[in-house]
Amino acid sequence: MTQPHDHIVKSYDDERQRLLGEILRMGEMAASQLEAALDVVERRDDKAAGRIIDNDEAIDALEKEVSHDVMKLALRGPMARDLREILAALRVSADIERIGDYAANVAKRSTALNQSPPLPHTRGLNVLGRLAVSQVRDVLEAYRGNDAEAAQRVRDRDAELDALYTGLFRELLTYMMEDARSITPCTHLLFMAKNLERVGDHATNIAENIWFLVHGDDALPPREKRDETNTVS
Amino acid sequence: MTQPHDHIVKSYDDERQRLLGEILRMGEMAASQLEAALDVVERRDDKAAGRIIDNDEAIDALEKEVSHDVMKLALRGPMARDLREILAALRVSADIERIGDYAANVAKRSTALNQSPPLPHTRGLNVLGRLAVSQVRDVLEAYRGNDAEAAQRVRDRDAELDALYTGLFRELLTYMMEDARSITPCTHLLFMAKNLERVGDHATNIAENIWFLVHGDDALPPREKRDETNTVS
Repeated sequence: MTQPHDHIVKSYDDERQRLLGEILRMGEMAASQLEAALDVVERRDDKAAGRIIDNDEAIDALEKEVSHDVMKLALRGPMARDLREILAALRVSADIERIGDYAANVAKRSTALNQSPPLPHTRGLNVLGRLAVSQVRDVLEAYRGNDAEAAQRVRDRDAELDALYTGLFRELLTYMMEDARSITPCTHLLFMAKNLERVGDHATNIAENIWFLVHGDDALPPREKRDETNTVS
Repeated sequence: MTQPHDHIVKSYDDERQRLLGEILRMGEMAASQLEAALDVVERRDDKAAGRIIDNDEAIDALEKEVSHDVMKLALRGPMARDLREILAALRVSADIERIGDYAANVAKRSTALNQSPPLPHTRGLNVLGRLAVSQVRDVLEAYRGNDAEAAQRVRDRDAELDALYTGLFRELLTYMMEDARSITPCTHLLFMAKNLERVGDHATNIAENIWFLVHGDDALPPREKRDETNTVS
């Protein structure tokens, strides 16, 4: 009973499923990389840091695959709803790729950090990082389920991450003023904290793309944004 | 003598031209924003900084327009070469949008900087920034002309920008160690320098997309990458 048309539709759908699978795999890799990077900061393990840095290439390779698959899908002349999905796929994979970069960056800076004695502030960095990882995992889950409301919750929780970041930033500045020898390692910690705050921003971007996917161009609900670091005095 | 088919082809081409025009306009806005942000650092002008921050919305709005136009083009079921162009357009506009963000960020931090007495290092920041602006302008010119070789030159020059950044980074660290009161403003300068170094990375991304546009998936020539800040001891 299968019509030729059904066949085409089905295989188009297969391609879409493959694309979604690739993106989710990519996302899980980025989340794991981020977790591994946080671990490596705690354990001061340069070798493991090197592995994380190398692994980032796999995420970059996957992003290229996604672009290819997107091209193949777009060549079929998709309808408007499908095209929204395709555009979202491109953007979400670009955000995941950036999250992977930040994970590699945290790992890179951890090896620089290991050239100085341990600092108490890696604890605060870890808390910030764990929240960032859970934001990434939650937004991927929302993407898998096409769940705009879950995405919206991730977006709202970004303010928490920003507040944590601002607190850690101030703490680090105070510490640097009290002890000049801590300036170099604390500078690395500042950038690592910024990287994790940026991971949260990319999770938010993904959340906004899920909203766009589900609701089209309907305006997003307002959101509180609290990055106060630029007014730190 | 005009055939219906010719008509369709021509209007497709019109759409492409419009898309290119939008992206170039967006790029010029980002480059101007960056220049204005560098000026504002020198002149310590909070009001002008506020205008730069507000202007960033116009770039974000243009990126949305580009996405829409890309969707319209993709709905026509483009051929492989056109699709490469469309994909490149999406990516290039995303990179320009990020450059605009970095310009707004530099402006934002300049107002934080103005809460402390002037620092001599804004000079070095300015040099770094001017190079970043010229990288952006040059890569946009390469994009306009579909010039993979010019794009390649931009990509090569990124190592210069990285070296300047690394030098400024070290200089700032030394200064912070010598004078604890400079720590807060210098931290802002560190992040501003990082922003400008990132602008260079996005110019490089655009250059790589031009290469991809002209040569397809042919491997890019190797490139030297010198960001040594993560090994600063």
